[in-house]
Amino acid sequence: MKLRIFVTLKPGVLDPQGRAIHHALGSLGFQGVEDVRTGKLIEMEVADGTTDDAIDGMCRQLLANTVIENYRVERA
Amino acid sequence: MKLRIFVTLKPGVLDPQGRAIHHALGSLGFQGVEDVRTGKLIEMEVADGTTDDAIDGMCRQLLANTVIENYRVERA
Repeated sequence: MKLRIFVTLKPGVLDPQGRAIHHALGSLGFQGVEDVRTGKLIEMEVADGTTDDAIDGMCRQLLANTVIENYRVERA
Repeated sequence: MKLRIFVTLKPGVLDPQGRAIHHALGSLGFQGVEDVRTGKLIEMEVADGTTDDAIDGMCRQLLANTVIENYRVERA
């Protein structure tokens, strides 16, 4: 089973990388960009029997810092 | 218009971060994880009139290193 896990900063958490991208796009002449936020994408191949609880555990214990980050799991 | 841009390493390109996650999941006792690949997610708010060419330009010039990375754009 293939998983795609998206880890994004919670709203309100400062995102310096996103700011840098926003600024750089402006310098390169791209108009109309209003906001940029960055996150992580983790693609994983797991055994078919992997439970939702196990996947949730992976996210909470390792992949996301739930104090400042949200995560979302997609099964592909 | 909201864009979500996924930047992933091309197949065959070494992914040390993915390896480290794979190893750490094993150490934490999560079984059955076969492969882990990491990527970047960039969420962007752009003006409605932004053309596909402009979006492609942003990806090629700044967001992705097309020598080793693929990108995919999703409109939300």
